[in-house]
Amino acid sequence: MEISHIEHIGIAVNNLEESIKYYEEVLGLTCYAVEEVADQRVKTAFFMVGQTKIELLETTDPEGPIGKFIEKKGQGMHHLAFAVKNIEAAIAEAEEKGVQLIDKAPRKGAEGLSIAFLHPKSTVGVLTELCENKNSK
Amino acid sequence: MEISHIEHIGIAVNNLEESIKYYEEVLGLTCYAVEEVADQRVKTAFFMVGQTKIELLETTDPEGPIGKFIEKKGQGMHHLAFAVKNIEAAIAEAEEKGVQLIDKAPRKGAEGLSIAFLHPKSTVGVLTELCENKNSK
Repeated sequence: MEISHIEHIGIAVNNLEESIKYYEEVLGLTCYAVEEVADQRVKTAFFMVGQTKIELLETTDPEGPIGKFIEKKGQGMHHLAFAVKNIEAAIAEAEEKGVQLIDKAPRKGAEGLSIAFLHPKSTVGVLTELCENKNSK
Repeated sequence: MEISHIEHIGIAVNNLEESIKYYEEVLGLTCYAVEEVADQRVKTAFFMVGQTKIELLETTDPEGPIGKFIEKKGQGMHHLAFAVKNIEAAIAEAEEKGVQLIDKAPRKGAEGLSIAFLHPKSTVGVLTELCENKNSK
């Protein structure tokens, strides 16, 4: 598949507000958006670092995916998202090569991107997201 | 501190060869270097994705930092490295702001970069590396 860059890194945190403070005050980055993604049961905060976004994720529900991740592994990097040129083609290629798909078709993610997740069992342990920005096309 | 981009993402893997195969054959990335970093007890493989490198890490010793990480958390993203303009200034600023340092002074990392780690207890759960490329200066 054609990957142009790392679109974002998703980081699971206990407390969004405290985490934003660390990223802004220690690292000197700027939070440019806070967004709730209801179907993922998360509140998110975004920072731009060169080409790549950092997406902080706080669960709004202990039973949501981020709540469960933190319960099992603690705070930390949760998923890695690659920007692809053509998400339908990338999903088809991944499936053809034996990757277990979480999403068989693209769906809407944060910031209106078209996204699909690949299962970490097939991606050497990293929950992997593919993203295409169709907004700008 | 002045961060320009994400220098690399370090990913702990059980088997470097199999993992390289996934990154090349499924994601279509190219492994441009394999390097052993003796003092970290790892073999590493590098891929360029836009501005950012992916650094796969296989331990050469079950008691090394990557061996212990995998034993505790399984394969997955291990650390996040930011490119900074001035690593001595960045370390001093982090310390002044109360961040627990793993390295109080820069040391040589993979690819000859000057690097220093910040403790995940102070960085909202993410083992964080600061890097300056003094080779190109």
